[in-house]
Amino acid sequence: MARVVVDVMLKPEILDPQGQAVQRALPRLGFEGIADVRQGKRFELEVEGPVDAAALRRIHELAETFLANTVIEDFTVRVEEPAVSEEAPA
Amino acid sequence: MARVVVDVMLKPEILDPQGQAVQRALPRLGFEGIADVRQGKRFELEVEGPVDAAALRRIHELAETFLANTVIEDFTVRVEEPAVSEEAPA
Repeated sequence: MARVVVDVMLKPEILDPQGQAVQRALPRLGFEGIADVRQGKRFELEVEGPVDAAALRRIHELAETFLANTVIEDFTVRVEEPAVSEEAPA
Repeated sequence: MARVVVDVMLKPEILDPQGQAVQRALPRLGFEGIADVRQGKRFELEVEGPVDAAALRRIHELAETFLANTVIEDFTVRVEEPAVSEEAPA
């Protein structure tokens, strides 16, 4: 089973009040030197079967239509490599 | 300015109703073959100055005390390389 990660973030030109709230709280909490914070969503999808080009295209469509609001959000789709990779003999 | 990404996900043993809601909706929407979905948070921090071991230790502390609830959530901290773009701009 492969894991595909979809990251959904507000577009840079869209105000991010959650991120701003975090960023403004940091100096009060003793953390200096963080110029900006943006907060978004991370989806981990466990995919049955091979994650080939067709599967990734399907997940891209899923993210575009369902996980992200593409009017205000950008998203990225990537396969997360397992910590231990096994290679089948040819 | 370097970007550090903090991913916060519910621990595997904690029920994730948001992820479950997404996963259950997928077949209705025509997406089969997704065995599980977990939904978490992604924070992008723009860090002033060099991201050295001390800065990363500080951000780790920040994530642990402020961004994640470590009773129910796990988090990872990583530096995002600026040169690598996952999605080509249109």
